[in-house]
Amino acid sequence: MIKARVTVTLKNGVLDPQGKAIEGALSALDFSGVGSVRQGKVFDIEVEGSDREAAEADIKAMCEKLLANTVIENYQVEIG
Amino acid sequence: MIKARVTVTLKNGVLDPQGKAIEGALSALDFSGVGSVRQGKVFDIEVEGSDREAAEADIKAMCEKLLANTVIENYQVEIG
Repeated sequence: MIKARVTVTLKNGVLDPQGKAIEGALSALDFSGVGSVRQGKVFDIEVEGSDREAAEADIKAMCEKLLANTVIENYQVEIG
Repeated sequence: MIKARVTVTLKNGVLDPQGKAIEGALSALDFSGVGSVRQGKVFDIEVEGSDREAAEADIKAMCEKLLANTVIENYQVEIG
């Protein structure tokens, strides 16, 4: 069993209204000095087998097909 | 300017319908051998100043108050 973590974040320049809302909420809660907030997604995936390279290739294919919208998002795969 | 990444994940035992939906979608796309999928959130936060310890304490307070629901979620802060 291989555990992997996929992190999907918005590309630079893509508007992030959710992040902006969090910035507003943090300043309403009196947290000062917060610059920008960008929100992304994380997926913890368990893959059967023990071939780390095959698992990484599989997970990259999952990102391309389903987990990330590569027009506006970057993804990063860490095999744990 | 300090950059931090906050990762918020569901605690073990908390149901994750979104993760289950992703499992179903992956198997519909013919990815075999996928065990469990759990989805979480990631926040990339920029904080002004250069005191890493103060920034970490601030960000933990943000997690407790706003970013994570500590009843059902764990959070992890990495100062970059």
